[in-house]
Amino acid sequence: MTETAQPEAKTARGGRRRGRAPAQAGPKPIQQAPYWQPKMPFDPVELVSADELESIHETSLKVLEEIGMEFMLPEARDLLKQAGADVRGDRVHFDRALIDQAVATAPAEFTVHARNPAHTIQMGGKWMAFGNVSSPPNASDMDNGRRVGNRDDYQKFLKLSQYFNCIHFLGGYPVEPVDIHASIRHLEALRDMATLTDKPMHAYSLGPDRIRDGIEIARIARGVDQETLNNEPSLMTVINTNSPLKLDVPMLQGIMEMSSRGQVVVVTPFTLAGAMAPVTMAGALVEQNAEALAGIVMTQLVKPGAPVIYGSFTSNVDMKSGAPAFGTPEYMKSTIIGGQLARRYGVPFRTSNTCAANTVDAQAAYESVFSLWGVTLGNGNLVKHGAGWMEGGLVASFEKFILDCDLIQMVMEFLQPLEMTEDALGFSAIEEVGPGGHFFGCQHTLARYDKAFYAPLLSDWRNYEQWDASGRPDAMTKANQLWKQALADYKEPAMDPAVREELDAFVDRRISEGGQATDF
Amino acid sequence: MTETAQPEAKTARGGRRRGRAPAQAGPKPIQQAPYWQPKMPFDPVELVSADELESIHETSLKVLEEIGMEFMLPEARDLLKQAGADVRGDRVHFDRALIDQAVATAPAEFTVHARNPAHTIQMGGKWMAFGNVSSPPNASDMDNGRRVGNRDDYQKFLKLSQYFNCIHFLGGYPVEPVDIHASIRHLEALRDMATLTDKPMHAYSLGPDRIRDGIEIARIARGVDQETLNNEPSLMTVINTNSPLKLDVPMLQGIMEMSSRGQVVVVTPFTLAGAMAPVTMAGALVEQNAEALAGIVMTQLVKPGAPVIYGSFTSNVDMKSGAPAFGTPEYMKSTIIGGQLARRYGVPFRTSNTCAANTVDAQAAYESVFSLWGVTLGNGNLVKHGAGWMEGGLVASFEKFILDCDLIQMVMEFLQPLEMTEDALGFSAIEEVGPGGHFFGCQHTLARYDKAFYAPLLSDWRNYEQWDASGRPDAMTKANQLWKQALADYKEPAMDPAVREELDAFVDRRISEGGQATDF
Repeated sequence: MTETAQPEAKTARGGRRRGRAPAQAGPKPIQQAPYWQPKMPFDPVELVSADELESIHETSLKVLEEIGMEFMLPEARDLLKQAGADVRGDRVHFDRALIDQAVATAPAEFTVHARNPAHTIQMGGKWMAFGNVSSPPNASDMDNGRRVGNRDDYQKFLKLSQYFNCIHFLGGYPVEPVDIHASIRHLEALRDMATLTDKPMHAYSLGPDRIRDGIEIARIARGVDQETLNNEPSLMTVINTNSPLKLDVPMLQGIMEMSSRGQVVVVTPFTLAGAMAPVTMAGALVEQNAEALAGIVMTQLVKPGAPVIYGSFTSNVDMKSGAPAFGTPEYMKSTIIGGQLARRYGVPFRTSNTCAANTVDAQAAYESVFSLWGVTLGNGNLVKHGAGWMEGGLVASFEKFILDCDLIQMVMEFLQPLEMTEDALGFSAIEEVGPGGHFFGCQHTLARYDKAFYAPLLSDWRNYEQWDASGRPDAMTKANQLWKQALADYKEPAMDPAVREELDAFVDRRISEGGQATDF
Repeated sequence: MTETAQPEAKTARGGRRRGRAPAQAGPKPIQQAPYWQPKMPFDPVELVSADELESIHETSLKVLEEIGMEFMLPEARDLLKQAGADVRGDRVHFDRALIDQAVATAPAEFTVHARNPAHTIQMGGKWMAFGNVSSPPNASDMDNGRRVGNRDDYQKFLKLSQYFNCIHFLGGYPVEPVDIHASIRHLEALRDMATLTDKPMHAYSLGPDRIRDGIEIARIARGVDQETLNNEPSLMTVINTNSPLKLDVPMLQGIMEMSSRGQVVVVTPFTLAGAMAPVTMAGALVEQNAEALAGIVMTQLVKPGAPVIYGSFTSNVDMKSGAPAFGTPEYMKSTIIGGQLARRYGVPFRTSNTCAANTVDAQAAYESVFSLWGVTLGNGNLVKHGAGWMEGGLVASFEKFILDCDLIQMVMEFLQPLEMTEDALGFSAIEEVGPGGHFFGCQHTLARYDKAFYAPLLSDWRNYEQWDASGRPDAMTKANQLWKQALADYKEPAMDPAVREELDAFVDRRISEGGQATDF
């Protein structure tokens, strides 16, 4: 009569409740749902009213008009000037009509192609796609602790990103492979990405040679010609503004290269409220919106109709220490309102699964689930840093990767529409069992029990005594076993030998040429 | 340019980034927001369509009409028979018109009075109220492990429930004080509840004497006469159906005593899909809805207009082991749809912050945040087990209590409308700082930084090196310090000496009479 668990509950097959099956000779393969791309089944939440949304929009237009934004690349300023912007030195002041016209040409939905067509994703509308951790300088796991990123860890994270069906795209390098020289790192890293995974790819905008190499590697991997690639977005790049109100040279080069070739630009201001943006969330959103609009305008001036994504990364800092905070209530709000803004402009929306924890404890989990809560209610279309991101992006954690896959899988399960057939409504089962009975053995249960509910990767639902007797493992300990098992189960996706040959020839040639001069 | 934390960030006061302040002579008091009751700032989510909701409603009416429900108390059956129900033995078949008429008299909103008027809460509409953990047989903490509940732990949890402003009501005994003899346990336990806290109270429906004693203690504590109490709900009781489709004697006695005195009945079917309910979530919701409607009808037959709450507790079990599962995607869905059903009937909605974890690890956190996600989108009005509930209700954990208070505070912060004033929109601050600047030292930041963002209880936002040097504490370790500090800071709320005298006289007399005969 009190709301406690039922220690005497029986199994579907009539046996006494028991723990997990005893350890097998080898570990069981990890159970995961087949690959699918989720869609929001309900309308995203409107956290601010239409009027309030307009006040953010209007204030950000005023920022772009009266304060302006610095564009550090002369060619970019020339293009803006031709389009009618008021350019004074590095500072560009935007006229409202220019913004309206340019934003209007950005597509609301588009397809991002993977070299494996089964992994091609839809962007915009109610679609959602989750990516892996991207860009941390460090990697960590429970066995070997925290270290500077290296190619071995990099490849392992790529394999995990390929292995887990809930990861829909590569958001960047899951960890920086620092042991590869910077001038050729992008070549080796993108070759690994193109061969160890077959999902949509990302290249960094760190100089024009690097991004051109990225586009060429994406083209070769897909086995298409340049014209096809220009019409089929197959590579993404994140353009972070140097907040407040500045777009650096390599970022602008990235926009010019990527947009001119019809590839996906993800404009993401890095507006931490109280640091690079006003200490109010409304003010940080104004700044985010101004910077995002400026970047989106730039893409459309390069090529009207070029695929572009509105990125939101606005969070707050800990005002006691200046440390960045993630997965906070403020982050949830900014993410949901970011979604409102992106939809206002009819541009797909990019968000992230963030966390600032130092270890895979309760904090890591609650910051991530709060992030995913905001991401979902905001209908993030492209969810970066989905799995493995920790310490505010300073570390890629193998155990966090598994935790996050579990969390994303749960969110995806939540996004599955509920079965509402007559059989699911269960009148006959209730009639069969009747008052005071139980459903474990009834026909309705037996026909459905093996696929009835989501089976988590980490949740330990054994009773206390069994859990205690098995050494009291916490979720992090179980995650440590699972990433190793996933790596053992991983299979490299097939690649046409001719494609592989072309890829290697290109990469090897570019390496022999010295890659990108590291001169900035 | 990559989305990582800023290790060189500066503080609002211009200093270098630093960790928390060095340890003081004594611990700093815990920072928490003043007491307030939150309200949903947006519309709750409609996870199933109006048609689908009707199909749940219609199927549950068919269950009550054709299968019926067992009512084990003869007086209850008599009342149902007089109202036109078809009573055959213990089994009661409900006519649709009877259900419609009775449910229509249940109030959509009401006030639940606390002995401290500042802690009186509103029930229904968009209001939300969070309660403490209730009813586990065991308590646990990191220092002394898991043990059978006792009065000392019971009192400590009451003090924590009073101390934390995010706890709005007592949902029951936070842990069973097993060292008090069962016949007088309710008397000592409710005296403790009435004196150590001043928030709305709960008594268990475990026999008519106990519930009458509970009503009398609530009356005395509030210092009002019986007639006033009858018109001012001041005590809550949870009525769990014995699912499937059965209401036991003490539960029906509870409804008859409480509803006739105008006190709050929280009808909560315990419908775990795959165990006491069909293995489909739709079927489990049909059963939940049938049982909830039956209980609600009973309250209104006892006294039309009596305050009653629609309770949802539907979750799933692990079909591999039969173990109850909580905080799952299935739980989120059932909670949100439960809210849709409660609103359809115009009755306040009860939900819970659930988790099945065995320790305060990532699992405990993600199951709780997923629960709170469902609770929020479903607009739970009365959120039971808000803080401290673990192991599916088998244990009240001191560390989990702190974690949950942090989570609830974050949800409440999320529910605060965003400041959208012109000053908050921050144009002047952005203008002052300009491109490439930073906001730490600007006037806008200095005027607001100390109250700008939610300050978490547990989140450790120090950088890795500082965290590592301090012994790598996880969230559970910090929670262990905080519950002790909260107990040290706790102050017993004032009580009029005359009220205290009357309360002691009543409780002592009833104890000397032997309390409740433990004969069922």
